[in-house]
Amino acid sequence: MTSIAVAGASGYAGGEILRLLLGHPRVVSGEVTIGALTAGGNAGTRLGEHQPHLFPLADRVLDDTTPEVLAGHDVVFMALPHGASGPLADKLPPATLVVDCGADHRLTDSEEWTRFYGTPYAGTWPYGLPEIPGAREVLSGATRVAVPGCYPTVSVLSLLPAVAARIVDSAVTIVAVSGTSGAGRSTRVDLLASEVIGSARAYGVGGAHRHNPEIGQALSAVAGEPVAVSFTPVLAPMARGILATCTARTTASADEVRAVYEKAYADEPFVHLLPDGALPTTGSVIGSNSVALSVTVDERAQTLVVVGAIDNLTKGTGGAAVQSMNIALGFDEAEGLTTVGVAP
Amino acid sequence: MTSIAVAGASGYAGGEILRLLLGHPRVVSGEVTIGALTAGGNAGTRLGEHQPHLFPLADRVLDDTTPEVLAGHDVVFMALPHGASGPLADKLPPATLVVDCGADHRLTDSEEWTRFYGTPYAGTWPYGLPEIPGAREVLSGATRVAVPGCYPTVSVLSLLPAVAARIVDSAVTIVAVSGTSGAGRSTRVDLLASEVIGSARAYGVGGAHRHNPEIGQALSAVAGEPVAVSFTPVLAPMARGILATCTARTTASADEVRAVYEKAYADEPFVHLLPDGALPTTGSVIGSNSVALSVTVDERAQTLVVVGAIDNLTKGTGGAAVQSMNIALGFDEAEGLTTVGVAP
Amino acid sequence: MTSIAVAGASGYAGGEILRLLLGHPRVVSGEVTIGALTAGGNAGTRLGEHQPHLFPLADRVLDDTTPEVLAGHDVVFMALPHGASGPLADKLPPATLVVDCGADHRLTDSEEWTRFYGTPYAGTWPYGLPEIPGAREVLSGATRVAVPGCYPTVSVLSLLPAVAARIVDSAVTIVAVSGTSGAGRSTRVDLLASEVIGSARAYGVGGAHRHNPEIGQALSAVAGEPVAVSFTPVLAPMARGILATCTARTTASADEVRAVYEKAYADEPFVHLLPDGALPTTGSVIGSNSVALSVTVDERAQTLVVVGAIDNLTKGTGGAAVQSMNIALGFDEAEGLTTVGVAP
Amino acid sequence: MTSIAVAGASGYAGGEILRLLLGHPRVVSGEVTIGALTAGGNAGTRLGEHQPHLFPLADRVLDDTTPEVLAGHDVVFMALPHGASGPLADKLPPATLVVDCGADHRLTDSEEWTRFYGTPYAGTWPYGLPEIPGAREVLSGATRVAVPGCYPTVSVLSLLPAVAARIVDSAVTIVAVSGTSGAGRSTRVDLLASEVIGSARAYGVGGAHRHNPEIGQALSAVAGEPVAVSFTPVLAPMARGILATCTARTTASADEVRAVYEKAYADEPFVHLLPDGALPTTGSVIGSNSVALSVTVDERAQTLVVVGAIDNLTKGTGGAAVQSMNIALGFDEAEGLTTVGVAP
Repeated sequence: MTSIAVAGASGYAGGEILRLLLGHPRVVSGEVTIGALTAGGNAGTRLGEHQPHLFPLADRVLDDTTPEVLAGHDVVFMALPHGASGPLADKLPPATLVVDCGADHRLTDSEEWTRFYGTPYAGTWPYGLPEIPGAREVLSGATRVAVPGCYPTVSVLSLLPAVAARIVDSAVTIVAVSGTSGAGRSTRVDLLASEVIGSARAYGVGGAHRHNPEIGQALSAVAGEPVAVSFTPVLAPMARGILATCTARTTASADEVRAVYEKAYADEPFVHLLPDGALPTTGSVIGSNSVALSVTVDERAQTLVVVGAIDNLTKGTGGAAVQSMNIALGFDEAEGLTTVGVAP
Repeated sequence: MTSIAVAGASGYAGGEILRLLLGHPRVVSGEVTIGALTAGGNAGTRLGEHQPHLFPLADRVLDDTTPEVLAGHDVVFMALPHGASGPLADKLPPATLVVDCGADHRLTDSEEWTRFYGTPYAGTWPYGLPEIPGAREVLSGATRVAVPGCYPTVSVLSLLPAVAARIVDSAVTIVAVSGTSGAGRSTRVDLLASEVIGSARAYGVGGAHRHNPEIGQALSAVAGEPVAVSFTPVLAPMARGILATCTARTTASADEVRAVYEKAYADEPFVHLLPDGALPTTGSVIGSNSVALSVTVDERAQTLVVVGAIDNLTKGTGGAAVQSMNIALGFDEAEGLTTVGVAP
Repeated sequence: MTSIAVAGASGYAGGEILRLLLGHPRVVSGEVTIGALTAGGNAGTRLGEHQPHLFPLADRVLDDTTPEVLAGHDVVFMALPHGASGPLADKLPPATLVVDCGADHRLTDSEEWTRFYGTPYAGTWPYGLPEIPGAREVLSGATRVAVPGCYPTVSVLSLLPAVAARIVDSAVTIVAVSGTSGAGRSTRVDLLASEVIGSARAYGVGGAHRHNPEIGQALSAVAGEPVAVSFTPVLAPMARGILATCTARTTASADEVRAVYEKAYADEPFVHLLPDGALPTTGSVIGSNSVALSVTVDERAQTLVVVGAIDNLTKGTGGAAVQSMNIALGFDEAEGLTTVGVAP
Repeated sequence: MTSIAVAGASGYAGGEILRLLLGHPRVVSGEVTIGALTAGGNAGTRLGEHQPHLFPLADRVLDDTTPEVLAGHDVVFMALPHGASGPLADKLPPATLVVDCGADHRLTDSEEWTRFYGTPYAGTWPYGLPEIPGAREVLSGATRVAVPGCYPTVSVLSLLPAVAARIVDSAVTIVAVSGTSGAGRSTRVDLLASEVIGSARAYGVGGAHRHNPEIGQALSAVAGEPVAVSFTPVLAPMARGILATCTARTTASADEVRAVYEKAYADEPFVHLLPDGALPTTGSVIGSNSVALSVTVDERAQTLVVVGAIDNLTKGTGGAAVQSMNIALGFDEAEGLTTVGVAP
């Protein structure tokens, strides 16, 4: 029997992990159990106060997030503020599978970490984006996984085949429209419903967003050369979903591009390359682990336009965490995950 | 006394023109009167059935859109489907001020018109974007005005100073997030609330949107050389507002860029260059004729990022129409228009 | 092996049934198969054009909705416009399980049917609301099921225990706030995103909504006397979910009321009576078959206030359809259904 | 010259007052000036940081909310948390017109105040709902005005004619759907966009909401007898607007009811009784001072259903404040206010 703890269970990422686990066939069968659920300020309260949609766990009382509480589980999901998982993970047994939804273990370059996050550098863990060539081998049997950021997930998967095949320029421009849940359950004025509803706004403009170096790192790795990334996130009045419009100069034809993408994603269970003329909507992937992609070439502007859609909480966080756990533990990769969104 | 007719009064653009006219000081004083209101399929019905927010005009009955009904007014606003205003305008007296909110008279290149619209080419009228250098001189006393498209308005105003000053590359990338009212009151499945709410989607990807040539035409004109435009519109779950993220390669510094923009817009009543660190929101310009702009330089990616926000129905359509009328008739340019948005 | 056909597969109700079936364990295992998918005007097109979230079925081509196409399946779900399922069902074999999501077979009183719907009366089928005492016995082994309307489902489940226990007056007032998907995929102006977003409106006011007689019929049956129902539906800017505020005069205490509700729903897998002080949100039941209820007594106004929340497409339509199928076929009632919502 | 101060200028109510004042003809002409703008925690910051839509005042710096800063103005608008305006108003000169948007001076019954608010009772001021018979006489020349709550405004105006004419029972049921701005700019988890978007929820159920006694007070006064009020507020995913569904038992006919309402509101500039068959939408009154009403009789349920719509920030707060100021100072009542909403 495998037991799982979730640290940060009262937040959005923690809630999403629990939502998926409650439908995971091994949890349903009892082979895997949901153990300690922990929180910071919400410790001591019922989970139902924070996650009213998780009816089966409503009466669970949240524990404090401490190594003592988490130790003794086979799997620990960490859905904590950036900077919190590094020190905590150090105190967990090496054999425990620790899946970190925070940024702490994503960047390979300590200077980049310091520049964008400021807290002490915690090193790099295997990157939980199985669709990157070679990633599954690294994740299989791993005991530490760094779940990618939501923007990097959709940005990288949108551009990866083109960058890897070197059919685009090494400067890419990404404008990604996101729902508010990506910012977590933070009580900030700019995240209030009254501010968000009926309004769109950009933030982290000019390369300031923390996901910038993560996107650059992944794309540069597959390109084998530095890729310059202009990334602008835009907040839209929706709770979930990211739609990334990714552009790069190209001289390739539409057919060449499509062939590259078809080949790259032919065997990926969660990546859906849409037929010509169809375009992704975030609404079609809500609650699912799917990535919907369209590829178009603007011949006049000699530009490749890839539009990608994910649910930031599922494929962008909790789904990637469960997918990585499945791979690490040798389960079927898709267990507990669906390609089917909740729409409309 | 000046009388005004509005053709297409039951649609969103027509409704916005009427909303603004009802607050125009010369309409309030009685110097300007609102005459015939016309429609296509809705002719014969009360305006209140279609524009429930226009209480003072609720009992007006819509006439058919014919030259006979429209003739005899001093000003005719046309808020009609693309292709409809060309033939109609031919039958209106030359001395009548005709302000066309459709696309029919925007493009100077007949081949571009044919390529993107398909209907017979109707020629070019003075372009109702007063903020373009020299435009006010042309609009003053004009009897024909082509109101710009909503996406071109915000895109051009976002990039104009940089392009005119040649501090950016001649290839620009624009991703513009829009509310649904820009698509008009069309009963299409993809515009249903159930499809739009909770979802973002791109459309007209790869240079296919009809506003593409209009943006290129305006930017190329101020640049004095061809500007390649990659333009992607994105629909977000909001009724009004466009947020355009406009990027171009640059070697200029942030200070240089800011100086260029400050100089360009120093005397513009409706263009607000936000202070460093502030970023536009569409929510702050709803119902107003304002354009909110931020300029940022991403030094690593050597990219200028200008974010612009407008209300697509006000500055993007009806407000520009009234602003143009004011200039054409010699009124104060800002009469009946406000810089103050309705927020939150 | 059991084969299932879905008539009306390109609409919202049909899409929801398919979404749930794709996660049904007997479909996953292959014991139950998804056969013909049919449509009206959309026949001949790919399902993916209409239901982009149902990736596994994207390439299925829609058949015409005819008895010939549907016959030969063990189960037929009908998600058709009101009035269409009556004539169609007559031509299906008696042994086929026909689950009708339309209204055609809900009302026992033919005069009420004629008054509210106008089309010929098609008779009454077993009512697919298993939570009504005695309903499961009728549904078990049934070959015809009338799935309740979405408003009746939440209204009846909110008031049933109080009405059955006769602790409230026989006149009840229900104001139910609904998302737009309850109106189906109809291209009506008043369902456009631009009209719905940022606005709330009542409709069918004064007893005019077609769900009025259905609510009265169910409540009167459990009361054993006529219950007068004042029902007002309100459309809110969301795609899914109904929140019903149900009030009735009472002299019972809060404790008495709670005891009645706890007893009534103690064994119901999908009805969640929230603890004192907690109130339902539609957000917590999206995509789930859950009904969340709060019971409160306003002692000053001597009024019982029950607030109920469901997802109109799941428990309000597709989930009830699958739940009824499970009971009719002798499967476990909850197979393929979850109590866990997708939130936030 | 008349000078105006606004206390609480960084909140939603304060922002709305300023939005309206910026369009007030006497402010435009310079006869009335906008003086001190004050805040609590936001004192010392630019107004533009908090009210980005008020471009003309963006560079104003917020003062502390103290009697010293406010004194010396002819008019003081107070948009402060409940309990704050009572003590502050005591220190302002008697001749200063103080318009309080808080609840402090609304309730005539000190016990009700204590029961619902808890802070010391501050007494009663003239009630700023001019549409109540006799109210204008009291407000004319007044130097203290208590602006009604947003829910009471729409609830009372919806039911007033029927209650005053005694054509309904003395027990009324109100379910009012509201946008989030009514809760102010409070950084509470339950007001976050992620929680609100896609979800509806009731709150203050069972007579617990603070607007309950205010509604009862006003309706009982016009009825001349106690009116029992069951009031349930519901939060919907929109920023502005309240739609109140108000029901009461009646034996009057639809014609009788309509005659009563037509007579009551014949001369009211801001109350619009919609024609038979039309129903209010909050979308049609956004940004306006309008109240849209429909009256319907459900003959089967012997119930009057009045649906009322207002913008909670305009007619529900800032518009009522300006309307009251206009009356108190002898200006035309409608100056600076519009009946025209911003739609769609």
